[in-house]
Amino acid sequence: MRRTSFANWPCSFARTIDLLGDSWTPLVLREAFYGVRRFDEFQQGLGIARNTLSERLRRLVDEGLLDKRVYETQPVRHEYVLTESGRDFYTVVAAMTRWGDRWLADESGPPLVFHHEPCGHDSTAEIVCGHCRQPLDVHDVTPRPGPGYPAKLLSRPDVRQRFRLDEDPAGHRSV
Amino acid sequence: MRRTSFANWPCSFARTIDLLGDSWTPLVLREAFYGVRRFDEFQQGLGIARNTLSERLRRLVDEGLLDKRVYETQPVRHEYVLTESGRDFYTVVAAMTRWGDRWLADESGPPLVFHHEPCGHDSTAEIVCGHCRQPLDVHDVTPRPGPGYPAKLLSRPDVRQRFRLDEDPAGHRSV
Repeated sequence: MRRTSFANWPCSFARTIDLLGDSWTPLVLREAFYGVRRFDEFQQGLGIARNTLSERLRRLVDEGLLDKRVYETQPVRHEYVLTESGRDFYTVVAAMTRWGDRWLADESGPPLVFHHEPCGHDSTAEIVCGHCRQPLDVHDVTPRPGPGYPAKLLSRPDVRQRFRLDEDPAGHRSV
Repeated sequence: MRRTSFANWPCSFARTIDLLGDSWTPLVLREAFYGVRRFDEFQQGLGIARNTLSERLRRLVDEGLLDKRVYETQPVRHEYVLTESGRDFYTVVAAMTRWGDRWLADESGPPLVFHHEPCGHDSTAEIVCGHCRQPLDVHDVTPRPGPGYPAKLLSRPDVRQRFRLDEDPAGHRSV
């Protein structure tokens, strides 16, 4: 079954979700964050079928999150190294881990703790406003069409309603 | 095809990934963050098949992210309202949106901007250490088995290697 593509939706969240596809792709990235680089190590760490792993690694290379490099020439062997965008994806892993620790862990507590070397403390990620650095809450945030939003969509009634473009700005509601 | 379950892995990231399942579940949540509560509004906003939407809404109710409430009794009609854990999932959406804005937007810029009402600025999320509040980088973070990690796994060589449990603590490497 061909899945619906969200890659062209004017929404960075939908695009990122589209890139991930299914559960295996982010879990392959998780292994890379543990320092895994070689096919057999990914395969053993995840217990994933080899053809599934090949496809997910190719996807991550195509999308620019992993770089495929030769590390041995006789015979030729490759390893998969995080690119800058792949490494930056750790922020998403950290946000999801924080949420899972809070809402999915049982009474024994979080399965993993994360030691932050620069400050010397075990810590959980926090997701803050990049300007005032206070924790983000959805009720405090109002989404608006940005510079990359397709202009032709802005006249559609459903889009105008979604972003409340016809409401009094003084009384605008947050999401 | 029955998909592999990651719900019992000792990893809050894998558990959260498992809960999402495929792309539709997080996109249904996205609609809820826009204020959508009713079945037909979810359906129209996403262009999703009704049976797919039913299944995803039921999943989100079962997992405790949405609460199904009666809003009309003759005939009975339901709406879906974010719970505390569902609302907290916005932190994951914000982290993914930040990443997508940075790495997937074209030259015209991000499709959406987010106005943070309390500070009055358009802003991007930042993912910081909950202790020192500096931006998190994967190279600065060392994962260790936490209180919820299954004790029986700690004697396995692959687990000891993954967490570098047998290395000199003074010389431990970050991921």
